[in-house]
Amino acid sequence: MQTADYKNVEIRAGFVRDLQERNERVSVDNIYKRFRETGRFEAEKCKRDDAHKPHIFWDSDVAKWLESAAYILAKRQDAELKGRVEEIVADICANRRADGYFNSYFQVYEPENVFCKRTEHELYCAGHLIEVAVALRDAGADEKLYAAMLRYADYIYDRFYVKKDTGFYTCGHPEIELALVRLYEASKEKKYLDLADYFLEERGRHEEESYAFTYPSYHQSHLPVREQKTAEGHAVRALYLYTAMADVARIKKDAGLAEACKALFADIVGKKMYITGGTGSTYHGEAFTFAYDLPNFLAYSETCAGIALALFCDRMAKLENRAVYHEIFERVFYNNILAGESRDGKGFFYVNPLEMHESAYDYNESLKTKLFCPIPERVEVFDCSCCPPNLTRFIESIGKYIYGFEGDEIFVNQYISSSIKTDTAKISVRSEMPFGGKAVIRFGGRGRLNLRVPAWNGGVSMKINGKKVEPDISDSYIRIDCDGDFEIALDFKIKARFVYANENVWQDNGRKAVEYGALVLCGESADNGKNLGTVRIPSLSGAKAAKGELFTLRVSAERLRTDGALYSYEPPKKEKVALRLIPYFCWANRGKGDMQIWWL
Amino acid sequence: MQTADYKNVEIRAGFVRDLQERNERVSVDNIYKRFRETGRFEAEKCKRDDAHKPHIFWDSDVAKWLESAAYILAKRQDAELKGRVEEIVADICANRRADGYFNSYFQVYEPENVFCKRTEHELYCAGHLIEVAVALRDAGADEKLYAAMLRYADYIYDRFYVKKDTGFYTCGHPEIELALVRLYEASKEKKYLDLADYFLEERGRHEEESYAFTYPSYHQSHLPVREQKTAEGHAVRALYLYTAMADVARIKKDAGLAEACKALFADIVGKKMYITGGTGSTYHGEAFTFAYDLPNFLAYSETCAGIALALFCDRMAKLENRAVYHEIFERVFYNNILAGESRDGKGFFYVNPLEMHESAYDYNESLKTKLFCPIPERVEVFDCSCCPPNLTRFIESIGKYIYGFEGDEIFVNQYISSSIKTDTAKISVRSEMPFGGKAVIRFGGRGRLNLRVPAWNGGVSMKINGKKVEPDISDSYIRIDCDGDFEIALDFKIKARFVYANENVWQDNGRKAVEYGALVLCGESADNGKNLGTVRIPSLSGAKAAKGELFTLRVSAERLRTDGALYSYEPPKKEKVALRLIPYFCWANRGKGDMQIWWL
Repeated sequence: MQTADYKNVEIRAGFVRDLQERNERVSVDNIYKRFRETGRFEAEKCKRDDAHKPHIFWDSDVAKWLESAAYILAKRQDAELKGRVEEIVADICANRRADGYFNSYFQVYEPENVFCKRTEHELYCAGHLIEVAVALRDAGADEKLYAAMLRYADYIYDRFYVKKDTGFYTCGHPEIELALVRLYEASKEKKYLDLADYFLEERGRHEEESYAFTYPSYHQSHLPVREQKTAEGHAVRALYLYTAMADVARIKKDAGLAEACKALFADIVGKKMYITGGTGSTYHGEAFTFAYDLPNFLAYSETCAGIALALFCDRMAKLENRAVYHEIFERVFYNNILAGESRDGKGFFYVNPLEMHESAYDYNESLKTKLFCPIPERVEVFDCSCCPPNLTRFIESIGKYIYGFEGDEIFVNQYISSSIKTDTAKISVRSEMPFGGKAVIRFGGRGRLNLRVPAWNGGVSMKINGKKVEPDISDSYIRIDCDGDFEIALDFKIKARFVYANENVWQDNGRKAVEYGALVLCGESADNGKNLGTVRIPSLSGAKAAKGELFTLRVSAERLRTDGALYSYEPPKKEKVALRLIPYFCWANRGKGDMQIWWL
Repeated sequence: MQTADYKNVEIRAGFVRDLQERNERVSVDNIYKRFRETGRFEAEKCKRDDAHKPHIFWDSDVAKWLESAAYILAKRQDAELKGRVEEIVADICANRRADGYFNSYFQVYEPENVFCKRTEHELYCAGHLIEVAVALRDAGADEKLYAAMLRYADYIYDRFYVKKDTGFYTCGHPEIELALVRLYEASKEKKYLDLADYFLEERGRHEEESYAFTYPSYHQSHLPVREQKTAEGHAVRALYLYTAMADVARIKKDAGLAEACKALFADIVGKKMYITGGTGSTYHGEAFTFAYDLPNFLAYSETCAGIALALFCDRMAKLENRAVYHEIFERVFYNNILAGESRDGKGFFYVNPLEMHESAYDYNESLKTKLFCPIPERVEVFDCSCCPPNLTRFIESIGKYIYGFEGDEIFVNQYISSSIKTDTAKISVRSEMPFGGKAVIRFGGRGRLNLRVPAWNGGVSMKINGKKVEPDISDSYIRIDCDGDFEIALDFKIKARFVYANENVWQDNGRKAVEYGALVLCGESADNGKNLGTVRIPSLSGAKAAKGELFTLRVSAERLRTDGALYSYEPPKKEKVALRLIPYFCWANRGKGDMQIWWL
C-alpha cells in the first residue's frame, strides 16, 4: 500500500485541523523561543560557548523543529517562519566540515572523536538532519540543506560502508536507518538504501560500545535484527529501528525481515503496549520490560515512543495493509501522542503515566534526592527536549496517514476531515471523530473504496447517495466499488465501553478502563475528588456524553468509603457518586491532581 | 507497667518454644559460621586486613550475635557457645583503646576520625556493644565486657556531654540512646540516663552531617524530638529513636516527650504500617514515606524495622499500658518479624514485600544494572547483615514481652506458652496461638489478673476452675480478681476474616486481606498458580483451616480469566478455584514464586 503525499491532502475543518492550527499558532513558535533561549539554534553556528555547551542531541531537536516548519511552509507562505528556517539552514550549511560532516557538538568539543563514540547520537542527529533536508526540499522551501545532507550521507557512506574506519558499526540510537530510506526515496540513489540496509544488518553482529548502565538489548544490539522477535530495550530506539526494518523489508521485498517486523509488532501490541498505545514500562532505560508488565503510575510511555509506534504502524501498513495497523495508529494518536501536549499548545509531557498520585509526586519533590516520578503538569521545555518538536512535526504531517492506495484500491484508514485529489479520483472525508461516529465520504472517480471499520464500532449503518445500503465488510474494511460520484454516509455506533486488560497484566487485575470510540477516558480529581482508586463503575448503561469545552462522560458510580482506621474488619461502605470522565489526552490541564484510567 | 525479667520466664512447649529451639539449634550457629567466614569476628582483633576490611557496622552484627548467645547462656550451659562468646569478648576487651573507646573499623582504618563522622555508625555500634554487655552480665555469662563498656560509655559521656569536642552532636543512626537507658537501668548510674536524654534532646537542634543522598528527616534530625509528631525517614533509625524516647519519657515522667511518642505511634499504626506490622514504604532511604503510601511489591518493611516496632510497642506499654501496644506487637511479631526467617532457620529476609512477582524479579536480575527489587528467597548472610542476628536475639528474648506488672495488677499480654514466678504469684499460660484460640492460664497467688482480649477475637468463652463465667472485659482486658489457685480456660473464637485497608491506601483499593487470628495469610503460586491478582474471594464462609506441616486455609474463590488479547471488550470469565492460603510468615519456603496478600 502506498500512502498519500501530505501536500496533496488538505486537512479540513475538524479535530485535526484545530490541532494543526494550535500547533502553528502556538506550539511551533513557542518551541522556537524555548530553543532559542536555551541556545539550541545558536549552537548550530558551531562556536565554542561553554556557558551554553550543546547537548549531543541538540541538532536533532533543531532538525525536528525545522521539519515542523517545513510542513507548514508547504501549506502557506510565512515570511517570519521562513526567515527563521533560512537562518538555521544557513548556519548548518556554513558550518559543516569540508568533507560534509556536521555535528554542532562534536565539531566544537570533540573533533578528535568524530564517529568514535557509538552512544553519543551522531548518526541519530544526522538522521534527523537528513529527514528535514528531504522535508524542506519536498515542501519547496529549501534546496541547500538537501544538497548539504546528500554530501553528509555520502560521507557517512564512505566512512561506515566503504572504509569502515569508524569506532563503531551501528548507531547507539537508531534513526539514521529510516532517514536513509527517506533519502533514498527522495533521491532514488540506491547507495542510501544500501547503507540503511547495512546499518540494519550489522546490528547485533558485533560487540559494540554501550552506556555503563545498559545492556545490549537496550540498543537492540543483542541479536541480528532479523532474529529479533520480541521488543526489547529503549522504546524509541526500538521503534525507530523497527520502522526502518519495515521500510527496507517493503522496498527490498525481504520476507525474512518482514517476518521479524510482524513478530515485533505482535509482541508489542499483544504484550507490551498500554491501552493508550504508550510503550516503555520503565524509566530505567526508558524501555520495554517483559511481557504484560504495564505499571500505570510508573509507566514511561514517552511521547516520542508514541510517535515512533505510529510510524511503525504506518510502515507496517505499507508493507502489508491490514486494519490492525490503523487501529493501533488511531489508538496511539488519540491517546498517547495527543496527551503529550497541553490544551494551550505550550506545555509537553515527555512521560505519559496512566495514573497520577499527587501525594506521591509532592513527597518525591520534597526529597533532596528524588526518585523517578512522573510529573503532574506539562512543561515548555526539557533538558532532553526531544518530544515537543517531534510532536509538532507529527501533527503537521498527519495528512500522510489518512489515505492509502494499492492498484485500484483506495483506502480511508483514518476518519480525519480532509480531502485529496489523485490522478484518477478525488476523495473527501467529513468526520465527527473522535467525539462522534458519523463520517461522510465523498468520492469522485473510479476504483474500489475501502473504508476502515474502527475496532470500537458498535454497529454501522451506511447510506450511499442517500440510500441505505448494507455494508459489505471484510477484514475490517467496508468495500465499495465506485465509478462516478458517490456520497457515503457512515454512522458507526459509538458508545462508552468497558475494556479489560489481559489477566497477565497484574497492574490492571480486577479493573477496567472506559473507552468512548477511539478515546481512552480518564477521571481526574479536579472533577471527582481524591482516592479515584476506590471508585467502582458497576455499569456504563446510562452514561451520558457531553461535548462542552471538554468532552465529558458522566457515569453513575460508587465510591468505597472506609472509616478512619488503617485496617478494619468492616467492609467499605458504598456511596453513590456521579463520575465525570474526560479523554485521557485532556488530562492535566487544570492544575496538579490525581488521574486514573483503570477503575474497579 | 513493668515487664518480666526474661530469666524468670520459662518458655514452655508450643509455637515460640519451637522457634527458640530452631534458633538455638540452627540459626545462632549458622549465623556464627557466616560471620566467621566473612571476617566479622576476626575484625574484633583490630588487625589491619585489607582483604577483609570491616564494614563500619560489623561491631553491631557481632554484638547482636553475642546478645543472642547471652540469652541462651542464661537458660543453659553450652560450653561451645560460651567458648565462642568468651573469645570474642576477650578480643573486644583486649583491643579497645586505653581510653575505653572501641570500634574495630575506626581504630584500624581511621583512628584520626574517631567521633568525627556522624554518618558512620560509631555510636550505633557502641550502643549494641553496651546492650550485649548488659545482657551478658545479666545472664551471668560475663562481667568483663560490662566493665569495658562502662568505661566506653564514660568515654562517650566525657567526649559528647562534658567536653563536646566531637565532630557531631547526635549519632546518624539512633541506638546509643536506648542502650544507655539499658545501661542506666542495669547500673543505676544516672549519668547514662543523662547522656541518653542529652542525645535525644540535642537531635534536631543543630545542622548536622548527613549522607549526600539524604535529607534531615532521614536521620530524624529535622526537628527537636519532642516536636516530632509524624514518623519520618529511615524506619529502623526512627523506631530505635522513638523507643529511647519512650524509655526516657517513662523514667523521667516527661509528659511532653510521652505526648510526642504517642503521636508518633498513632501516626505509624494509623497511617504508615503494613498489615503485617512492617514499616518503611521505600527502599530509598529504607524509609517511611507519606501517609497511606503502602506499596506491596516494592515495600521495604525491613525485618529490623519490625523488631524495632516491637521494641517501641514494649516501651509504650511500659509508659502507659494499653492493649493496642500488645496488639501491634502481636501483629508485627507473627507476621513481619517471623517472615524474616526461613523455616529451616538458615535463611533471612532483609526486605519483606507483601507481594512477589517472580517475572519482575527475573527480569530485573537479567539486567546489567538492576533496580531495587525484593528477593523471592531468603539468603544466609547479607553485606549489611543487621537483620539475622537482630532476629535471633529477639526470638531468644521473647520472654520479656509476655507478662506485665503494675502494683497488684498482673497482665498477660501475649498468649505464649510459658510460666513465671514472682515474689507473690506464679502464673502459667498454655496456648494454641497463633493457630488456635484456646489458652489455659493457671494462677496461684493474689492480685488482679488482666488477660488481654486479642483484637481478632470473634467472641470469647471462659471457664474459671471448670465453671463457665461471663468475662468482665474492659479496655480489651478480662479482669479477674484472684486470691488462691485459679485455672482460667479461655476460648477466643478464631476464624478467617477479611481485612480492608483504609480508602486512602490506593495500593489496596478494592482488595481485602485474609487474617486468621493474629496471622495475616497469603497465597503463593506454589499452591495456586500464577496471576494471583486475578483471584477474587467472594466470601470466607466455608473456609477450612488445616494444621499440617504448613497451616493452610482452604477457601472457595474464583479466578478471572481473559482470552489471549491484551485488551478486550469481553469481561473476564469467572472460574471456580480452591485457593490455599498460608501464614504470611511461611512464604518463600518452597522455591521462587509469586505471593500475594491482598485479594479481589
